[in-house]
Amino acid sequence: MKIYITEVGPRDGLQNIKEIISTEKKIEFINKLSESGVDEIEVSSFVSPKAIPQLSDAEEVFRNINRNKNVIYSALVPNEKGLERALSVNVDKISVFTSASETFNLKNINMTIEESLNKFKNIIKISKEHKKLTRAYISTAFYCPYEGKIEEKKVFQIALKLLEFGVDEISIGDTIGKASPDDVRNLLSVLLKEISIEKIVLHFHVTYGMAMANVYVAYKEFSIYKFDSSAGGLGGCPFAVGARGNIATEDLVYMLKRIGANVNVDILKIVSALDILGIESQSYISKVINLL
Amino acid sequence: MKIYITEVGPRDGLQNIKEIISTEKKIEFINKLSESGVDEIEVSSFVSPKAIPQLSDAEEVFRNINRNKNVIYSALVPNEKGLERALSVNVDKISVFTSASETFNLKNINMTIEESLNKFKNIIKISKEHKKLTRAYISTAFYCPYEGKIEEKKVFQIALKLLEFGVDEISIGDTIGKASPDDVRNLLSVLLKEISIEKIVLHFHVTYGMAMANVYVAYKEFSIYKFDSSAGGLGGCPFAVGARGNIATEDLVYMLKRIGANVNVDILKIVSALDILGIESQSYISKVINLL
Repeated sequence: MKIYITEVGPRDGLQNIKEIISTEKKIEFINKLSESGVDEIEVSSFVSPKAIPQLSDAEEVFRNINRNKNVIYSALVPNEKGLERALSVNVDKISVFTSASETFNLKNINMTIEESLNKFKNIIKISKEHKKLTRAYISTAFYCPYEGKIEEKKVFQIALKLLEFGVDEISIGDTIGKASPDDVRNLLSVLLKEISIEKIVLHFHVTYGMAMANVYVAYKEFSIYKFDSSAGGLGGCPFAVGARGNIATEDLVYMLKRIGANVNVDILKIVSALDILGIESQSYISKVINLL
Repeated sequence: MKIYITEVGPRDGLQNIKEIISTEKKIEFINKLSESGVDEIEVSSFVSPKAIPQLSDAEEVFRNINRNKNVIYSALVPNEKGLERALSVNVDKISVFTSASETFNLKNINMTIEESLNKFKNIIKISKEHKKLTRAYISTAFYCPYEGKIEEKKVFQIALKLLEFGVDEISIGDTIGKASPDDVRNLLSVLLKEISIEKIVLHFHVTYGMAMANVYVAYKEFSIYKFDSSAGGLGGCPFAVGARGNIATEDLVYMLKRIGANVNVDILKIVSALDILGIESQSYISKVINLL
């Protein structure tokens, strides 16, 4: 299968950095990403502007980006108010957000997992009525900063429920970047028993240094082909000052190419997209870009 | 097998950084590393002080470190003059240094590969007469900055010759950090056909972001158990400004522990050893040390 990359820098990346980026720069950043060959760009989040000031310009960004017809433009939607906003600017794909950890879910979105699933059931229903694609995130799918290791069974059960609601895919998030390659194998072994591979996206953070090994296992042993990543590894970890966040798109794409995967992302364009923001890249590949 | 870690920070790490570190700090650094559980410490290099001023205090360092009887203290030796110096301070293990690329070898040590092998044959002979352990490095064993991809056969032939000379082990160096997991599989498949596993050490650099995936493949698929690494990922890449160098000992050890390897290195001690130098760590694990 051709690799499917969702570039999450504009949302998951920017959400986790302090510097406020102007709307113009975000638009320029996303326009450049649109030319890179990534399959999907997570543009923003329709959460309350008070919750995440960095993303309060979601509508303006959506209205002003140049849409490439080969790219899906998605956004996070926490509730029906957010969904209305997203529909008003014709977002292609609606993403909802729950967690495999009760404690994390309560702290993050102030709902139990069950409450969040009930809420998202309706959001997914309305989204589908509007012919939108849908995604559900399951964050802290491996480890929770409060609860520690999360059981595979728990993730599996939440995933099944979300699929019953009709979501097109589920992004399995290693939110704190602590999953090991063995954890990845264990979880995928459980999920893929009943869930077909095109429904599974892996969302790795590099915090503990194992993300690239995790991608390797997922791709080589399970043929997983959908991955989330951010240009330059944009983002951080709210639980560890100075720690790195999302796996960098250019590092991910580079390794996938080197191990024979079918991936058509232009690494140079990813690296130059990040340059627009004036934020230092955390990737490996950006440092050797002249040697590629 | 128990994992065997050679901490190369004091030599390969420091050799590639500009800041001159005082002899006292090096000694303190090495003494701290000696308490960490690493099996071997590459203390310095007996090259010409003009070639590498950072390591010109090799004798003084060796004379003043506290030797832990469970640790092997090694040094690089480029020629017979260097060997004399090394023997004068009772180095435990003598390491010689060639390359799998003619061009690299010429530029690096001003000899053809064959010339270097002839020279090292004698150094290894004398070392063994002095009951010293010996190691040979084969650098640029995957890629050369001048010649590109290196054929597996070439590395294999050089390795066989070095083993004929009687070296105890061969460190296979991905000097520019460009090997992919597939390259690692290809080379190990060739080498392990005729060379027994205890003779093989892998020496990865993180420059292109694939070192952790490479370790994963080497350990899981081939049961390789000897690795080189440097505290804090100390070192850089002389071929790319700002790029990272050696795989960090704490990142390597952390992942190996997480995938079930038998490794007894104290990560906290590795991280605090680097602190002595006042050089910023390039590792992932140092940033989350409070969360371990």
